[in-house]
Amino acid sequence: MTLSLNARAAVLADALIAEAPALRIGVSHGPGGETLIDCGHRHPGSTEAGLHLARISMAGLASVSLVPSGLAPLPWSVLVRTSQPWLACLGSQYAGWHLPGAGDAPLMVSGPARALARKEPLFDDLPHDEHATRAVLVLEGDAPPTDGTARAAAEACRLPRSALTLLHAPTGCPAGMVQIAARVVECAVQKARLLDFPLADLTEAIATAPVCPPHPDTRAAMGRANDAIIYAGRAHLFVTGAPSRARALARRLPSRTAPDWGRSFAEVWEAAYGDFARIDSRFFSPAEVHVTALDTGETFTSGPPDLARLIAFSDASPPEPPKP
Amino acid sequence: MTLSLNARAAVLADALIAEAPALRIGVSHGPGGETLIDCGHRHPGSTEAGLHLARISMAGLASVSLVPSGLAPLPWSVLVRTSQPWLACLGSQYAGWHLPGAGDAPLMVSGPARALARKEPLFDDLPHDEHATRAVLVLEGDAPPTDGTARAAAEACRLPRSALTLLHAPTGCPAGMVQIAARVVECAVQKARLLDFPLADLTEAIATAPVCPPHPDTRAAMGRANDAIIYAGRAHLFVTGAPSRARALARRLPSRTAPDWGRSFAEVWEAAYGDFARIDSRFFSPAEVHVTALDTGETFTSGPPDLARLIAFSDASPPEPPKP
Amino acid sequence: MTLSLNARAAVLADALIAEAPALRIGVSHGPGGETLIDCGHRHPGSTEAGLHLARISMAGLASVSLVPSGLAPLPWSVLVRTSQPWLACLGSQYAGWHLPGAGDAPLMVSGPARALARKEPLFDDLPHDEHATRAVLVLEGDAPPTDGTARAAAEACRLPRSALTLLHAPTGCPAGMVQIAARVVECAVQKARLLDFPLADLTEAIATAPVCPPHPDTRAAMGRANDAIIYAGRAHLFVTGAPSRARALARRLPSRTAPDWGRSFAEVWEAAYGDFARIDSRFFSPAEVHVTALDTGETFTSGPPDLARLIAFSDASPPEPPKP
Repeated sequence: MTLSLNARAAVLADALIAEAPALRIGVSHGPGGETLIDCGHRHPGSTEAGLHLARISMAGLASVSLVPSGLAPLPWSVLVRTSQPWLACLGSQYAGWHLPGAGDAPLMVSGPARALARKEPLFDDLPHDEHATRAVLVLEGDAPPTDGTARAAAEACRLPRSALTLLHAPTGCPAGMVQIAARVVECAVQKARLLDFPLADLTEAIATAPVCPPHPDTRAAMGRANDAIIYAGRAHLFVTGAPSRARALARRLPSRTAPDWGRSFAEVWEAAYGDFARIDSRFFSPAEVHVTALDTGETFTSGPPDLARLIAFSDASPPEPPKP
Repeated sequence: MTLSLNARAAVLADALIAEAPALRIGVSHGPGGETLIDCGHRHPGSTEAGLHLARISMAGLASVSLVPSGLAPLPWSVLVRTSQPWLACLGSQYAGWHLPGAGDAPLMVSGPARALARKEPLFDDLPHDEHATRAVLVLEGDAPPTDGTARAAAEACRLPRSALTLLHAPTGCPAGMVQIAARVVECAVQKARLLDFPLADLTEAIATAPVCPPHPDTRAAMGRANDAIIYAGRAHLFVTGAPSRARALARRLPSRTAPDWGRSFAEVWEAAYGDFARIDSRFFSPAEVHVTALDTGETFTSGPPDLARLIAFSDASPPEPPKP
Repeated sequence: MTLSLNARAAVLADALIAEAPALRIGVSHGPGGETLIDCGHRHPGSTEAGLHLARISMAGLASVSLVPSGLAPLPWSVLVRTSQPWLACLGSQYAGWHLPGAGDAPLMVSGPARALARKEPLFDDLPHDEHATRAVLVLEGDAPPTDGTARAAAEACRLPRSALTLLHAPTGCPAGMVQIAARVVECAVQKARLLDFPLADLTEAIATAPVCPPHPDTRAAMGRANDAIIYAGRAHLFVTGAPSRARALARRLPSRTAPDWGRSFAEVWEAAYGDFARIDSRFFSPAEVHVTALDTGETFTSGPPDLARLIAFSDASPPEPPKP
């Protein structure tokens, strides 16, 4: 395996830069020469920018597209597929690292730079040795990264600041809503990890989740985006090994297995004082799960979604009656 | 904003030329050196050519794809997304210009050459200054463009004829039916303009419409293709500004608000003596509309589609019973 | 028509090689210098590799993508479109050639090398003269190709072994299941040929079929993959000529017209002693068919699918009840 996650993401970031005016994003350089791609702070960004952001977050190891959802008030879904679930999701997309942002607000860091910095214990479990001459970070937070963010990132990645590309967007902008929805696969992979499923036995993942409309309030945006995964996300995992383990994974993976199931994410988050670490992590999971045991050809399904609940939680305004 | 609409379209046109044999289209050069891409007149063309035609009509500022519709007798839809709705739709795709074609039949002109010619008043409202060394036109009409068409186009665009690329197709060929269905976003944007919605506040649009089967008769083809937008088109607009305006836009945008709602487009067009200008322009609009107010996160929905009516209007032959 | 099927496929094969680690496939060279791309024998492969395999099987003359199926226990479908149905399907994708594999097990050969070898009578009916300096083969079988396979292929194609690219996968691996599902268009085209429909009058085809989960047993994998086409495949054909012929084609093409309709493919295959030639060839066909007569604009539909039967046949394990 000679994959360089950052090299793959850098190619995609350069392609995104070439489309900056069309996608309403901004490109600039910071004081240390780092490249800054603003997907929703001072520039409006777009849904299309969000699809790029998701692909870059997954180090170019996933196909991410927008499809009709068939769900009236939330008409679009993301479809995400990866043949490298643990590398794309845990090695790159999972927002498990934080860097200092404006004021004392931390920025959640996603993207392959995490695999260079290796500040998180999960990298001890991933048999991947990342080498790269550039580092790519995807930053989610209320404000853009600062001089301090870039300095800390460069130091952690042991690269000059000019070798950094920092993509950033607030949670609730159009690009942000897409990149969160595209975490539906990552939620499934991370939950499989929590359930001690051996990662090397998870060979492929395909999933969808509705894309919720943007919201200027971070709490509301985070609430509806996570509800979309928890109450309407669908994931299909291909695993090797005994079918009994595949079956157990299917039974234990859906969000229904969490005590918080039935409540809106915003409510749960508030009850946890806005601290992700206080939320029962079983809640971060797709609603419907299919697990195919490659060794026997059996597929185990668990769920199902609860679309009515999603709509009740995430639709901020009642549909208008037809106006003849 | 340094976008050149024609430069973007020219790149796509060149890529289409490279696939001419595979897509059943013809490429030739006119007497003045202009490039002619025949997508359905003397060459049969194809659905795939229609997807290219739609992307070129929108100056490469949109993603256009074919997806299953979930609608039994019309199994395919186009999905169109753009982060530059007014530039892609009004600045390029809208067929608001005419050029002389064979005999006295005018050709409807779409595509970014319109932004060079600036023959239409709407360009006074678009803050875009187009610069290009090539001009790309998409021509819809019963016959291919003539020597006179190319001469008039070159003069209007102030470019040599060798700098022109003219793509052409009749209304009812496979490529034509796709490129009309892909106007579902443009119908929404043009209707928003008619309703005096400030264009700068419309930042993004996503829409779908069923693709109707081809028809050799222009009136029938135009009828079913427009019915597909009017009775089954779905559009989602993202807007900035006060939510009250977003709400008003949602209520006023759907085709149901037109007095002609409930009639087939072919019938309305006939009653208007085949003159588009005599048709109440509120009729040219998607059936279902979602408007998200980015400033508050609210989404306002109006509609709904009337699929039964679409099928009654557009299905020229009754489905066959199963034959065991 | 200057299309080189093998040249088109070779470009796609080279692009696939560049993504080998990401898609879990293996690339090596055989003793005669031939390139071997293992999509599921010693390497696990992936769904994504299967999409590449399908596009290569169709000589790059088709768009092949994965979409949500809307069908709960089989959540994904392939969508296949081609503007060159007979060239893509009969000239390239149809597995009508066999080469010697490991032991005495024959390998089914698909892909454009067939058009160089011309070992099958159907090439007498295809007005295509293939020229290429490379040959691309897609091989389906329980074991990888051998030295003898490459020798026989090179001889038949009259090319040095170093000019060969052999892609190979077993029937029931993830890539194999996708490439079989993507044969839904080919089944329709081949059935049209059996019904003596003139191929030059078939100008375009679009189809979908659910992708079944992988299965390690070839008989079970072949059974479920073919059931997906026979009981849930949908195809839309565009044809020129008299509408009466289009109507007859629609009535005669669906799988319901076969005496075996209603039985699982695995059962039919077993009753035929595993010999494809003993199966009534009307059975290899999509469930639902739309035929549009381009000359009149009429569309004739026949079917419908029988999804319940598909699910009964192909779902190896009952869905789990929700676990609260």
